[in-house]
Amino acid sequence: VNEVGIVGDGAWGITLSILLHENGVPLTLFGYFPERVSDLRRTRRDEERLPGTTIPEEIRITDDPLELRDKDPVLYVVPSKFLRNTIERFKAKPGAHVISAVKGIEVGTCLRMSQVLEEELKDVGIAVLSGPSIAREVIHGLPTTVVVASRDEVLAQRAQDLLHSRNFRVYRSNDVIGVELGGALKNIIALASGACDGLGLGANTKGALLTRGIAEMMKLGVALGAEPITFSGLSGVGDLITTCMSPHSRNRHVGEQLGRGRSIQEILADMVMVAEGISTTEAALTLSRRMGIDMPITEAVFHILQGELSPQEAIVRLMKREPKPEYDFKSEGS
Amino acid sequence: VNEVGIVGDGAWGITLSILLHENGVPLTLFGYFPERVSDLRRTRRDEERLPGTTIPEEIRITDDPLELRDKDPVLYVVPSKFLRNTIERFKAKPGAHVISAVKGIEVGTCLRMSQVLEEELKDVGIAVLSGPSIAREVIHGLPTTVVVASRDEVLAQRAQDLLHSRNFRVYRSNDVIGVELGGALKNIIALASGACDGLGLGANTKGALLTRGIAEMMKLGVALGAEPITFSGLSGVGDLITTCMSPHSRNRHVGEQLGRGRSIQEILADMVMVAEGISTTEAALTLSRRMGIDMPITEAVFHILQGELSPQEAIVRLMKREPKPEYDFKSEGS
Repeated sequence: VNEVGIVGDGAWGITLSILLHENGVPLTLFGYFPERVSDLRRTRRDEERLPGTTIPEEIRITDDPLELRDKDPVLYVVPSKFLRNTIERFKAKPGAHVISAVKGIEVGTCLRMSQVLEEELKDVGIAVLSGPSIAREVIHGLPTTVVVASRDEVLAQRAQDLLHSRNFRVYRSNDVIGVELGGALKNIIALASGACDGLGLGANTKGALLTRGIAEMMKLGVALGAEPITFSGLSGVGDLITTCMSPHSRNRHVGEQLGRGRSIQEILADMVMVAEGISTTEAALTLSRRMGIDMPITEAVFHILQGELSPQEAIVRLMKREPKPEYDFKSEGS
Repeated sequence: VNEVGIVGDGAWGITLSILLHENGVPLTLFGYFPERVSDLRRTRRDEERLPGTTIPEEIRITDDPLELRDKDPVLYVVPSKFLRNTIERFKAKPGAHVISAVKGIEVGTCLRMSQVLEEELKDVGIAVLSGPSIAREVIHGLPTTVVVASRDEVLAQRAQDLLHSRNFRVYRSNDVIGVELGGALKNIIALASGACDGLGLGANTKGALLTRGIAEMMKLGVALGAEPITFSGLSGVGDLITTCMSPHSRNRHVGEQLGRGRSIQEILADMVMVAEGISTTEAALTLSRRMGIDMPITEAVFHILQGELSPQEAIVRLMKREPKPEYDFKSEGS
């Protein structure tokens, strides 16, 4: 059996390590910060991110990029803004397989994470992992289903074989663009849904917001080459619902704080973890303007994050849009 | 201005009466039980269903079916199992418009509510109202969006004009079948989602369940002539999300009690309100078998309701389904 490498020792990186370990897969977990790595090695715990969880001794934890050199596949589980620099540190061997579990879009380039991997690694088989998977629920064995997408069917099958288990069901897809965009864009809608929570709005508003959110994600996705049906699947509506329901979602949490009237600067000063939705909002808005797609929720979230629009006013504006037939694709720029 | 009739003095009937009243529409609210009607007239309150809400004096409340005779449109807001008998009591004048706000399928005939109206009233313009609208949130002015569907565009526009207001946004659709089935079938999935809550499962499982639930609703809907996109809209995914998030949904509540191990007989003995999902499950399962459509969640809910399957075992079975490509329409009987 090949040894697998996992790059990223956050909540999801640790969770995937433990999943693979429980499936009998030998692996090495890489962390960027020597101090954190040495803590994890010593305590086998991360009480803040995964309270009560012990990382089995058999999982090797390292901060030495050389130890990742012969691993195959390598799973990338780092915040999106660190992915490019992280890849540059170890360049996987040509021919090796990589799997991205990063849910974001690169600011500036507006590239999906698999495109960043492609640019940096060339000729490497790439799969992406997405779907409704709050880390601490997976760790506690609560039934979870995810989707792995690759244009390389052998790699998709391989990723499924590695990760699939009794309570962690892995489906396959070949729509890399859709699966990746679903996982990334849903965080924008989660920010908006959290803002509804912070404003004390109810389930009716959230149901409507998520519905319009999915429609807006799908419009951009289809313009960028995704299959529309993917957004009705685990990596679209599924991940969106889970994120908006879970008290543990960071993006929903940031939105809730915004809804309570705090500024993004104040909120981020209190957080150890990254809320991917913030940078994804900026990147998605740029993409939507480039493609001529109207994304009113994304636009509203962007202006809230900029401090230019109150969440209250944003909801009023979204609700005020002219009553019309529910689906009116003719009037859209797409 | 025509006077409008509302048939049904439950939480949703009262809520729609107050909405119309606030829009300046004169109306009469009909209730079936003289004792309840006389209570409502005297107290202008229903503390159990709509705590804190007062029904304005200007809303006429009656138990005399003759008072509905000249009303147009008439809105039907009764439990699905009472619709046919209720219509028989007053037969609207030919040419009058009726709007159904009933979310169910008739057991035995497997007819949608608008089909029951059609059978009973002939030559009458029919619209259906659906979408994510928990009554007590609407009463409190929390932003809500719904959809009204009719094959008669004039009637759809008329219903929209009557009901639309600042915090109650009404969209139009011409997919009567889809809008009606979305509102009815979502209650089956809400029962299952509630069972997840009762079992202590998390947001990952619910995200997956709702995703597969929407797919299963869409498959049956399309086989019965609905537009697939409708199930991605307010009356499909939107209503489903709201129902599964809300502590006030009766169907979710029944599911939660089932998840905790109580029998359906015990649960119903404690409830004053009707959980439509119970009869809808039976009707939908009959329809699915007739159309040769596989509906594993509906099937599981049916067997749980029959006391033949534990919720725990149902989840295990649903999770055990063979890992496969996420969308594999070829293998379906549809």
